[in-house]
Amino acid sequence: MRSSPAPEPPVFADVEAAAARLAGVAMLTPLIESQRLNERIGGRLFVKAEALQKTGSFKIRGAYNRLASLAEEGNRGEVVAYSSGNHAQGVAAAAALVGVRATIVMPRDAPASKVRQTRDWGAEIIFYDRATESREALAETLAAERGAVLVRPYDDPWVIAGQGTVGLELASQAEAAGVRLDAGLVPCGGGGLAAGICLALGECSPSTRVHTVEPRGFDDTARSLAEGWRVVNRPGARSFCDALLAPSPGTLTLAILQKAAAAGLSVGDDETQAAIAAAFTHLKLVLEPGGAVALAAALAGAFEAEGGTVAVIASGGNVDADVFCRALAAGRPA
Amino acid sequence: MRSSPAPEPPVFADVEAAAARLAGVAMLTPLIESQRLNERIGGRLFVKAEALQKTGSFKIRGAYNRLASLAEEGNRGEVVAYSSGNHAQGVAAAAALVGVRATIVMPRDAPASKVRQTRDWGAEIIFYDRATESREALAETLAAERGAVLVRPYDDPWVIAGQGTVGLELASQAEAAGVRLDAGLVPCGGGGLAAGICLALGECSPSTRVHTVEPRGFDDTARSLAEGWRVVNRPGARSFCDALLAPSPGTLTLAILQKAAAAGLSVGDDETQAAIAAAFTHLKLVLEPGGAVALAAALAGAFEAEGGTVAVIASGGNVDADVFCRALAAGRPA
Repeated sequence: MRSSPAPEPPVFADVEAAAARLAGVAMLTPLIESQRLNERIGGRLFVKAEALQKTGSFKIRGAYNRLASLAEEGNRGEVVAYSSGNHAQGVAAAAALVGVRATIVMPRDAPASKVRQTRDWGAEIIFYDRATESREALAETLAAERGAVLVRPYDDPWVIAGQGTVGLELASQAEAAGVRLDAGLVPCGGGGLAAGICLALGECSPSTRVHTVEPRGFDDTARSLAEGWRVVNRPGARSFCDALLAPSPGTLTLAILQKAAAAGLSVGDDETQAAIAAAFTHLKLVLEPGGAVALAAALAGAFEAEGGTVAVIASGGNVDADVFCRALAAGRPA
Repeated sequence: MRSSPAPEPPVFADVEAAAARLAGVAMLTPLIESQRLNERIGGRLFVKAEALQKTGSFKIRGAYNRLASLAEEGNRGEVVAYSSGNHAQGVAAAAALVGVRATIVMPRDAPASKVRQTRDWGAEIIFYDRATESREALAETLAAERGAVLVRPYDDPWVIAGQGTVGLELASQAEAAGVRLDAGLVPCGGGGLAAGICLALGECSPSTRVHTVEPRGFDDTARSLAEGWRVVNRPGARSFCDALLAPSPGTLTLAILQKAAAAGLSVGDDETQAAIAAAFTHLKLVLEPGGAVALAAALAGAFEAEGGTVAVIASGGNVDADVFCRALAAGRPA
């Protein structure tokens, strides 16, 4: 695996600048509390509903922040990205909004709905084989050939800062609700969202501890945080959380998570299915597998929420109907 | 059928008073715009996501406004209500919040999830047979026996005023988004929500025309508005919109709708299934059949939205998983 170059890590001011760029572009997603889920955990549970965000996930925030920054610098050339689907849609939508061309490298087995939605935003899609090809290498070659900017999904200061605006909103919504958050649980692939939220909460709600949540078998970030250096997932693991299968944390993201003393959790796919069903029943939110892992950690006990006040990020809702309905059937409460 | 006594109809000031009571109780639900749905209708479509409301529908607004008003008058006795499910949950939750006992008369064939949620709020449930018993008579007898207040689902000034707070929020959210709404499409059973919204918009957005939307075969309000008097549904019709099967508009609600020059629309269950699927794909919202009819009217052409700016109320999301997944399978775009 080629390692990425290491640009300057983003800081809190970059998150504030991202929020200014995103005003009127990203939706201020609601923070939802459910009496039934509070009873389930024996504490107070707040759900930040990023599934309702434009493009169905938080990814538009980071992508738009990157593309708008490029445009501010006078760069209106085309962009290239690689993604299993949510960053793809985020970059495609941001490119449409800013008015530049986007080409996205996507795995051939990406959810059909994610491919369709990415195409609907006007992006060109190039497929690769997850098992035999390196998406990074493919995207880097493509970007070099076309003179395009490669918009990385997480190890990019602008992307991290953009995702951090979720944390800014969370802090101000918690304050408006009159609560102090003990913990924030964040779905984690490469760690862009979790790192951005660490930057925001470190300034706006320093007593809130951030926990990354990964699918079991893809807990590279949890293990990296525990071991103190960047580790890679063991081969052979499987999960239906298609959005969270990054092989290892980013260089920038891990450094930010370490500095914030974030902790790492993981959940099984059965627990995530139950969380999808709970969100259907109690929140009326459509969550995709990767968007439901933080809720799963709070509901299934990976995180001990009893007596505490915890926020979970419900980060996305781009899921095919058959996967969703299988989760409802499997995850239904007895 | 016994007709209800006719109390003073509510006015705009009652909606404002309801909003003051509901502050911190009801959620300010988001107004969501989707680029894809805008393209589908050839205009701008805003969705007021009341499915995210506490209890999964707007009904908590009217129920809480009624019960809080009773408490203000010093009446903290028990309450009785009849409902197929959403008003049941609204009254049960409001009773729990205010601290009074609630008994709900529900049809034996109400959705399992609605029965379970009503019970979870601590209400006592008494079942009746939709085909052979009158729920109004049953509830009136029960209320008389127990010295309880009967909280009617729509033909009650406090209930109408409470539901009207949806319209207040809609008007202020549209203004914040910088748009002038040409039309508001509102799911309609007995007309409480539509009447309340007429009161709010009549004052805050007088150029917005309210349209009620009913399931085909249950278009008693549309026909009453067209014919100028209160008509009853023809027997034998069937619809999966369990929340919208009221036999006729209320006396108060119809008078308010007439005064506001509201128009009546209806949609087929197939169109509603397609709207449920569209909300799943593009909005990440779980909608129940009755909560999706206004969206269906905008998407399927019952309402001509092209070139206009229209808001639809997505009024509820309390749906059993099997009904929801059948709608996704049937309503999926080709």
